[in-house]
Amino acid sequence: MDQSNRYARLDLNEDELIKGGRHVLCAYLMKPKAGYYDFLGTAAHFAAESSTGTNVEVSTTDDFTKGVDALVYEIDEANELMKIAYPIELFDRNIKDGRAMIVSFLTLAIGNNQGMGDVEYAKMLDFYVPPAYLRLFDGPAMNIQDMWRVLGRDINNGGMVVGTIIKPKLGLRPQPFADACYQFWLGGDFIKNDEPQGNQVFAPLKKTIPLVADAMKRAQDETGEAKIFSANITSDDPFEMIARGEFILETFGENADHVAFLVDGFVGGPMAVTTCRRYFANQFLHYHRAGHGMVTSPQTQRGYNALVHMKMSRMQGASGIHTGTMGFGKMEGDPTDKLLAYMLENEEAEGLYYPQKWYGMKPTTPIISGGMNALRLPGFFDNLGHSNVIQTSGGGAFGHKDGGTAGAKSLQQARDAWMKGVDLVEYAKEHPELKGAFETFHWD
Amino acid sequence: MDQSNRYARLDLNEDELIKGGRHVLCAYLMKPKAGYYDFLGTAAHFAAESSTGTNVEVSTTDDFTKGVDALVYEIDEANELMKIAYPIELFDRNIKDGRAMIVSFLTLAIGNNQGMGDVEYAKMLDFYVPPAYLRLFDGPAMNIQDMWRVLGRDINNGGMVVGTIIKPKLGLRPQPFADACYQFWLGGDFIKNDEPQGNQVFAPLKKTIPLVADAMKRAQDETGEAKIFSANITSDDPFEMIARGEFILETFGENADHVAFLVDGFVGGPMAVTTCRRYFANQFLHYHRAGHGMVTSPQTQRGYNALVHMKMSRMQGASGIHTGTMGFGKMEGDPTDKLLAYMLENEEAEGLYYPQKWYGMKPTTPIISGGMNALRLPGFFDNLGHSNVIQTSGGGAFGHKDGGTAGAKSLQQARDAWMKGVDLVEYAKEHPELKGAFETFHWD
Ligand SMILES: O=C(COP(=O)(O)O)[C@@H](O)[C@H](O)COP(=O)(O)O
Ligand SMILES: O=C(COP(=O)(O)O)[C@@H](O)[C@H](O)COP(=O)(O)O
Repeated sequence: MDQSNRYARLDLNEDELIKGGRHVLCAYLMKPKAGYYDFLGTAAHFAAESSTGTNVEVSTTDDFTKGVDALVYEIDEANELMKIAYPIELFDRNIKDGRAMIVSFLTLAIGNNQGMGDVEYAKMLDFYVPPAYLRLFDGPAMNIQDMWRVLGRDINNGGMVVGTIIKPKLGLRPQPFADACYQFWLGGDFIKNDEPQGNQVFAPLKKTIPLVADAMKRAQDETGEAKIFSANITSDDPFEMIARGEFILETFGENADHVAFLVDGFVGGPMAVTTCRRYFANQFLHYHRAGHGMVTSPQTQRGYNALVHMKMSRMQGASGIHTGTMGFGKMEGDPTDKLLAYMLENEEAEGLYYPQKWYGMKPTTPIISGGMNALRLPGFFDNLGHSNVIQTSGGGAFGHKDGGTAGAKSLQQARDAWMKGVDLVEYAKEHPELKGAFETFHWD
Repeated sequence: MDQSNRYARLDLNEDELIKGGRHVLCAYLMKPKAGYYDFLGTAAHFAAESSTGTNVEVSTTDDFTKGVDALVYEIDEANELMKIAYPIELFDRNIKDGRAMIVSFLTLAIGNNQGMGDVEYAKMLDFYVPPAYLRLFDGPAMNIQDMWRVLGRDINNGGMVVGTIIKPKLGLRPQPFADACYQFWLGGDFIKNDEPQGNQVFAPLKKTIPLVADAMKRAQDETGEAKIFSANITSDDPFEMIARGEFILETFGENADHVAFLVDGFVGGPMAVTTCRRYFANQFLHYHRAGHGMVTSPQTQRGYNALVHMKMSRMQGASGIHTGTMGFGKMEGDPTDKLLAYMLENEEAEGLYYPQKWYGMKPTTPIISGGMNALRLPGFFDNLGHSNVIQTSGGGAFGHKDGGTAGAKSLQQARDAWMKGVDLVEYAKEHPELKGAFETFHWD
């Protein structure tokens, strides 16, 4: 059944829709499957399946129903592009507090439409959220400013947080794990659990965490500097997340405000982020997106891209999220990905298809990670235009020929050189750890 | 750095690994990105990034670490296939009860490896779980047998549950919604909320649910039969899920055991399933997978396929999960998808690459949905080989020319005809609702 008479309204104007403030707007790459409908017909069926319709007409539809149809308002067949406006009334809200939920946005705007028999593929490339819907999301409670405060830095321009992921990724028992933390903290600021690391039988959380808390105390005493630890509390079970969080805060005691919570997983993300955001609103919420490449990679024409993922994460309230290395590390990505960082950091930003104002919602801090090391930082900062990020190098710290402390120092030195506008090779002459980085790493 | 000397062990034998019982085995489609390593080298880097390694060597690695490496044990370059064995010690477990979590499996086995710069693409096609790890998962608490019990049927062979999704998908206010429920229940057994439908401003849950509970009572009185409702409790916030669930059970009162809970979303799934499974263990847990097509579609070469998704869902404890229409409905799929149903239902099943024994873990019930109607059922059952499924037709019920009651009856009649081995056209002569289905629907 061709539904374009009901679900397509090409007379609608995007600026008017934005001014009206009653619709979430979504831009999709979309290709119809051959043998069904034309481009507009497929777009209309897509909008129907994503709001008030199905593949046939049903007797129960009334006039009210038609008032909340999602509407195709723009198509560009040559570029496989379509834009759809979703009335904000379509989205589910909590009964307990009227707040919005990202799972409802996903289920409608990028749900069943991913399996329709007449759609070859579809991918969300960008979306726009009007203020009346945006304000129903939590947004971040904390971000890099709170870290700078803990570190005793200028809270408006505190610079790069020198971080690592304890490596090896997995397979350290409690004492070697805490030792690696101590080593790194002698030279750096911030350590995160590697994302799969939590409560393994060979490194039980209840044994590891007290040793890490102790290593933090010793490193702080020795350096006279504050140190930060990001602890993985991810689980399928929200009560497990809470139990972990509470145990960790208790164990760190006087240093509890030096603890961030790591939640991990592209698939596990939305509930883990909100659970943490609401239950532990006083901790920095570190969102690691492991697995996101299964849809965000430009190679796939389904799901949604990294920009969509970033926007959703700021809305949900991640304090910081991994944004990739923008082509300067080991993971997929390229320099234009700086757009992702700007969407997270700024009060107003241009997406790929839509502008977005954040109406005072706190920024989310970009976390830069994945094959980074001292040599790669200046190019990265040149491209981004600043260095107010959290930067975590695992291999780039523990892979350094002189170990974790030297690795940490080499990262800080690379950032200092960049700030001073001094060439890295030049700077390395006077800085042995940076020199060591040159002797360890190369561009492969 | 080529890591095949450490992470590849092609001398290992799959049968031995299964007998040993200490590894989770995963089969992947994988293609290296040109210009980095050869097939085995890329596979080894993939295993490293998915367990104990990164892109460089790190000073902190010790002998213990190497004992929990993931190992490439088989490759077939021509078919872009690789198999990796993960020691079960790698996976995170809850501190509160020692139970396993699916998010840890995802983060390791299908996490960062989805964004590696030297991997063109990779997709998990199947996995094998040894008993020592399987028993750490909840498995289903309830399934179709509990529904049959409520419906007063043979609990070993109770036949198809005739279900619907209230349509339109969204946009009915509380009274029209409850009226649609009442109409369907006069002819059918089971109703589910459409997956995005929850607590919309135009249909507040606290107004809608009491009307639905009342409609159930009236339909039960009028037909003398038990009726079932599957209510959407999905949210980003676990406490919202609990609040919804408790309100719904209270409201249904004496009929609380006629209530199933719907959790929705490919992305929101894992935490929503476990939250529901553990907090509401006495309710049927209905898992709708909206959005799964972004990775499970055979068109994409990333993420994981539907078989992997199904296995994970049984492990986590879904009572029923949507398994698609296997090519007989409106969504993507084909007849060989019956494998998915067998993996959910049987005590032993053959996957695409691995056999799996379930060691008494309860079956998960296949839920058949997506463009189904009476005309399409016999072909579907012929292919599957039985009709002991939950079948939900939205359009196939409310799209029927004589409305929801007739639509429901036509579905039951189609199943009766199939059981009796009578041709549908023949059976329709004596059954007006089935005749009406022929007058309404056609194969498009
Ligand atoms: O292990 C990692 C970094 O370690 P190393 O420094 O040894 O490469 C990863 O978690 C990446 O951060 C993931 O990539 P994104 O940050 O792009 O999600
Ligand atoms: O709306 C639906 C069915 O309605 P209708 O009967 O009108 O088509 C969908 O939720 C499908 O069930 C989703 O597909 P899967 O079950 O394959 O996930």
